[in-house]
Amino acid sequence: MHFSELLSRLSGAAEQPRFLAQDPQLEGAAALDQAQAGQLSFLEPGNALLQALESSNASALLLPNDAAVQAQASARGIAWVALANPRLGFAEALEALYPAKRPAPARHSTAVLDPSAVVGEGVFIGPHVVVGADCQIADHCQLHAGAVLYEDVQLAAHCTVHANAVLHPGSRLGEGCVVHSNAVIGSEGFGFVPTAQGWRKMPQTGLVVLEPQVEVGCGSTIDRPSVGETRIGAGTKIDNLVQIGHGVITGKGCALAAQVGIAGGARLGDGVILAGQVGVANRAVIGDRAIASSKSGIHGEIAAGEVVSGYPAIPNRLWLRCSAAFNKLPEMARTLRKLNAADQG
Amino acid sequence: MHFSELLSRLSGAAEQPRFLAQDPQLEGAAALDQAQAGQLSFLEPGNALLQALESSNASALLLPNDAAVQAQASARGIAWVALANPRLGFAEALEALYPAKRPAPARHSTAVLDPSAVVGEGVFIGPHVVVGADCQIADHCQLHAGAVLYEDVQLAAHCTVHANAVLHPGSRLGEGCVVHSNAVIGSEGFGFVPTAQGWRKMPQTGLVVLEPQVEVGCGSTIDRPSVGETRIGAGTKIDNLVQIGHGVITGKGCALAAQVGIAGGARLGDGVILAGQVGVANRAVIGDRAIASSKSGIHGEIAAGEVVSGYPAIPNRLWLRCSAAFNKLPEMARTLRKLNAADQG
Amino acid sequence: MHFSELLSRLSGAAEQPRFLAQDPQLEGAAALDQAQAGQLSFLEPGNALLQALESSNASALLLPNDAAVQAQASARGIAWVALANPRLGFAEALEALYPAKRPAPARHSTAVLDPSAVVGEGVFIGPHVVVGADCQIADHCQLHAGAVLYEDVQLAAHCTVHANAVLHPGSRLGEGCVVHSNAVIGSEGFGFVPTAQGWRKMPQTGLVVLEPQVEVGCGSTIDRPSVGETRIGAGTKIDNLVQIGHGVITGKGCALAAQVGIAGGARLGDGVILAGQVGVANRAVIGDRAIASSKSGIHGEIAAGEVVSGYPAIPNRLWLRCSAAFNKLPEMARTLRKLNAADQG
Repeated sequence: MHFSELLSRLSGAAEQPRFLAQDPQLEGAAALDQAQAGQLSFLEPGNALLQALESSNASALLLPNDAAVQAQASARGIAWVALANPRLGFAEALEALYPAKRPAPARHSTAVLDPSAVVGEGVFIGPHVVVGADCQIADHCQLHAGAVLYEDVQLAAHCTVHANAVLHPGSRLGEGCVVHSNAVIGSEGFGFVPTAQGWRKMPQTGLVVLEPQVEVGCGSTIDRPSVGETRIGAGTKIDNLVQIGHGVITGKGCALAAQVGIAGGARLGDGVILAGQVGVANRAVIGDRAIASSKSGIHGEIAAGEVVSGYPAIPNRLWLRCSAAFNKLPEMARTLRKLNAADQG
Repeated sequence: MHFSELLSRLSGAAEQPRFLAQDPQLEGAAALDQAQAGQLSFLEPGNALLQALESSNASALLLPNDAAVQAQASARGIAWVALANPRLGFAEALEALYPAKRPAPARHSTAVLDPSAVVGEGVFIGPHVVVGADCQIADHCQLHAGAVLYEDVQLAAHCTVHANAVLHPGSRLGEGCVVHSNAVIGSEGFGFVPTAQGWRKMPQTGLVVLEPQVEVGCGSTIDRPSVGETRIGAGTKIDNLVQIGHGVITGKGCALAAQVGIAGGARLGDGVILAGQVGVANRAVIGDRAIASSKSGIHGEIAAGEVVSGYPAIPNRLWLRCSAAFNKLPEMARTLRKLNAADQG
Repeated sequence: MHFSELLSRLSGAAEQPRFLAQDPQLEGAAALDQAQAGQLSFLEPGNALLQALESSNASALLLPNDAAVQAQASARGIAWVALANPRLGFAEALEALYPAKRPAPARHSTAVLDPSAVVGEGVFIGPHVVVGADCQIADHCQLHAGAVLYEDVQLAAHCTVHANAVLHPGSRLGEGCVVHSNAVIGSEGFGFVPTAQGWRKMPQTGLVVLEPQVEVGCGSTIDRPSVGETRIGAGTKIDNLVQIGHGVITGKGCALAAQVGIAGGARLGDGVILAGQVGVANRAVIGDRAIASSKSGIHGEIAAGEVVSGYPAIPNRLWLRCSAAFNKLPEMARTLRKLNAADQG
């Protein structure tokens, strides 16, 4: 695809400055320091790769509104366009340069569908897929090889379930949800009542609701509750190996990084961001747009917009100062011993 | 089901006070603050939902032995029964109201069983299940879609293996064990010998023994050892995404929350409770009924009955005080600098 | 197998002292404190099981070059050989005593292979395996039951993919790689661009390259990047439930223990060892042969050969002293209050 053709696919590119001394044919894309001739790359304001511009072999660039950077690219003879959000443009460009392969609608002969399952138009059902009784699969869904839907699972239109993922009864997926390979939705929550005879299972009979445009990463698990719902808000993105306990409710547009664990009954507001390996305790409450840095552990309540770190999690600024002081504890202890001895001397 | 009929299913209900002005027909159950007409709910002593009793639409309640709460329910015209353990009663009620669907015994035509496998009476074998050579599947087991048993796997009666779970050679499951979706039992332990040519694999030839009534959560992994056994004690419940290394031995009735990791050779006593994301180091020893709070990291030895927190784990009470002091470290450092300056002044 | 025959399989045994009063027939192997008659065991220098030698029922032993230990074994009438590396010898012995079962080359009738897939000689393809378009499976690979290869996956010779593992497009496995059950290779990296309309997916079009002799544990996930490569160096061993983000590059011979998480773009040198539950932040850089102890969290840069602990990770020796001081914080705070009161008194 020629760069000029690509430009027509980039939102907001029309009104922006550009440099098209040549109009290179683009074969693909790469990071600025690894790009070869025929490849597109991009730069953001403050990008660490800025110095790579001096030697990059990229043939075309998406640049920020920075005249110096643009002049440098022009001087090197690299075609470019300025964009308000070069990263977003790069996402659009990758979609154009590497069009996603969408399997043609089909029902593989090895798939096993219960006769009571209702399947819409344009659905792809791959090899060895299993669809249980009373399932509803709306139009344009994709069920990849080995995916298993127990009975009573409902998928709205345009959902994708990747290979060997498992959806248990009571799973309800909104439009455009993606469940990645080996994820498990709707499994029984970890609810046991202690008795004199040992742990007795609390039946888990509720629903798991994924609102539209939710993504669930590979190997992640989202449990159904004993009663009521586990609910993931629209547009929330969940990375790999994340555990979400029974009865958790998240707001819209949250981002949960890999290996996060959220215990039963916790509540997250809209736009909450949890970095890798964060843990959230039972019934904790996290306000809108709060952010927890990696490995932090959250109990109780976090206010909206708060940025927290550590375990137990405290405001990030305080935690940074406490952590710095932690590293000086041996020295502090020594000084304290000295002063104490002097005081008692 | 009428409430009066349900009462006959609840252990210990016969001798308890009750209020049955009406005898509502129950369609299901819900948390007290979400229950609608026709639904059952419950309250425990000290339950945070107590105030929801004032406005709940529940038609029937399981209550603790608390006259004030009972009077309040009667005043609102809600049918109720008192129970010594309302949570246990709720578990029994859910079983009655939402009877578990047990697939009828069958062997799906797409399942692949080695001719040497021995399969008992009343067994359900779902689509695309694979059972290897010399496996033994006792009566009333359920193997759900896509489950894979390599050769030499033994299941006692009434075991359930959920969809796409994998059992490797040498897996031995006691009666009534449950392996949830995508869990892996009996995979090779992570044993490598460092050599000048790199890591050399130590063959892992031992067994993984799950004693009766063990549950293993979705995506959890339990490794086989080089020699000897990995053994999970009877009635131990393991949540999702838990890793149990080769040669670990746990006692009976332990509860391991999500994302716990137990390294090779560790020993847990009976009734040990590990909260979410706890880590246990190689060959650590944890005494009976010890409890580790979330994210703690355990080395060495923990005494029976101890409650520990933090990393490295220390007694919980001490840890609470140390954590509180941690948050004041910047202030402590400031005071210390001031005193030190005065001392040297 | 007689002990004398086994000796011929152990590298470096020929020139070593031995004691063969009898030449026991060996049926298997076990730890020293659990070995029965007919079993082999081993001891390393400083091994905690040394005292078990007094009562062990083992029939034969691999011993270190330690005359006292050897004399003790001889006195008890146990056959033994000395080895420079008894643990390595034990690995070799287990291979001899428990020869790995290798499935005979075959293509199961239930496997579904795209006609464009190229499959080499001596390949085992188990039940319900799926191989997509344009895949290349070189000689002597094993694909176990339920494994799914999307299109455009390449396996060099002697690779093993265990049950229900999933390989996405762009996965490239070098010779002798092992992907354990339910692992996922080449899934889309967690890349989203924040926009006014919510998270927009950055297409993930790059490759995941596993160099030769890499092992990936059960349930572990390795993501493909938007552009370029995620690359795991030759001989690197990855335990269960490990997450490796998009664009991560590791050196050769690393060892990553269970539940480690490595965020996007991080770089590891050769021979890096990360203990269980370690987290590595985006774009962190870890030098050759650095070691991180369990649960540590790494940001920024770690020098080659460094041993680090804690979060944020600091040199292990410092961390040990800081942790010890942490446990005395309440006492320190008390002393400080006393001195401050005296100062102001």
